[in-house]
Amino acid sequence: MRVIGIDPGLRHTGWGVVDVAGSRIVHVANGTCHSQGTELAYRLLSLFEQLSVVFEAHGPDTAAVEQTFVNKDAAGTLKLGQARAIALLVPARAGLEVAEYAPNAVKKVVVGVGHAQKGQVEHMVRLQLPTAVIEGPDAADALAIALCHAHHARFAGRLTAAIDKAGEKAGAA
Amino acid sequence: MRVIGIDPGLRHTGWGVVDVAGSRIVHVANGTCHSQGTELAYRLLSLFEQLSVVFEAHGPDTAAVEQTFVNKDAAGTLKLGQARAIALLVPARAGLEVAEYAPNAVKKVVVGVGHAQKGQVEHMVRLQLPTAVIEGPDAADALAIALCHAHHARFAGRLTAAIDKAGEKAGAA
Repeated sequence: MRVIGIDPGLRHTGWGVVDVAGSRIVHVANGTCHSQGTELAYRLLSLFEQLSVVFEAHGPDTAAVEQTFVNKDAAGTLKLGQARAIALLVPARAGLEVAEYAPNAVKKVVVGVGHAQKGQVEHMVRLQLPTAVIEGPDAADALAIALCHAHHARFAGRLTAAIDKAGEKAGAA
Repeated sequence: MRVIGIDPGLRHTGWGVVDVAGSRIVHVANGTCHSQGTELAYRLLSLFEQLSVVFEAHGPDTAAVEQTFVNKDAAGTLKLGQARAIALLVPARAGLEVAEYAPNAVKKVVVGVGHAQKGQVEHMVRLQLPTAVIEGPDAADALAIALCHAHHARFAGRLTAAIDKAGEKAGAA
C-alpha cells in the first residue's frame, strides 16, 4: 500500500510518499509544492497542478491531510482553508480515500507525545525513514502525516485480522 | 463579453452568467451547485466538477467571486475558504482573470448602498435582469456579483476610452 501525506499551506504545500509492506514502512519520495504568481486564483491553480503531477508520478493508494482549525486570524484561516481544499481535491479526483489527522494526533503517533516540537518530529521521521533525503520542513511534516496514516492503517489491519480470528474461533466452538 | 459571478459556499455555491454588449447587460443563465456526499474531500470534488460543467456549458470570458473574510467561527471560516478555493480554481483552470469583490462593494453597485438587505439585492437583480428566472437565493447573489463585475468592466472601459481620447487631444494640441 502506497500512502501520501500532505501538509497544506498556501505558500508551501509539503508532500511525502511511503510504502507499507507488512510491518515495514519504506520511504518513496518527498517534496514541496510552492505556489507561483501573485493572484490568489493562480496560486491555487499552481498548487493544484503541481500536486496533480506528484499524484501521477507516484500513484498513491490512500492519502492523509493535516487537519488544522486554528490560526492567528480569520484571514489566515481562510488562506489555510483554500490550500487545504486543493490538498483534499487532488486525492478525491484520483478516487482515493482521504484521511484527516489533527497535528497532535500526528505527533502522538510519530514522536509519542502530542506536544512535540517541530525539530523532534523531523528527527523521528529521519529515524523511521533512514533512506529519505528530506527536502525541507514542510516535506518532513508531510512524511510524518504519511507515517501516522501508515501506522493507523497497519493497526486497523491487525485489528480486523484479530476480529476475524476471534470470529473464526467463535464459529468453530 | 460574458461574465460569470460566483457566490461560494461549501453546501451551496451559486453561479450567474450575464452578457455585456455595449450599455446592455443581458441574463444568460444561473443556478446553484450543491455539494454531494459526507466526506469533505468528495464534497469539494462535487463542487469542482459541477462548476467545471457550468464553465464548459457557458464559456465565460471573465469571472468574479465574492470575497468574505468574516465568519462566525474559525471552523466556518475554514469551510468557506475551502469552498472559495474551488470557486477561484475553476476559472483559473479556464485561463480567466478572476476578480474578487467584497459583499458590501457588490451591494453598493447593485442596490446603491453597502448595507442592503438580501431581499433588496434579489429585487434589484430582478429589475436589472427582467428575463432571468432566478433559481434561488445563492444564484441571485451570484448574479449580483456578475452585475457588479459587468458594471465595473463597463466603467473601466469608459475610463480607458476617456483617457485615450484625452491623450489624442493632448497629442493633437
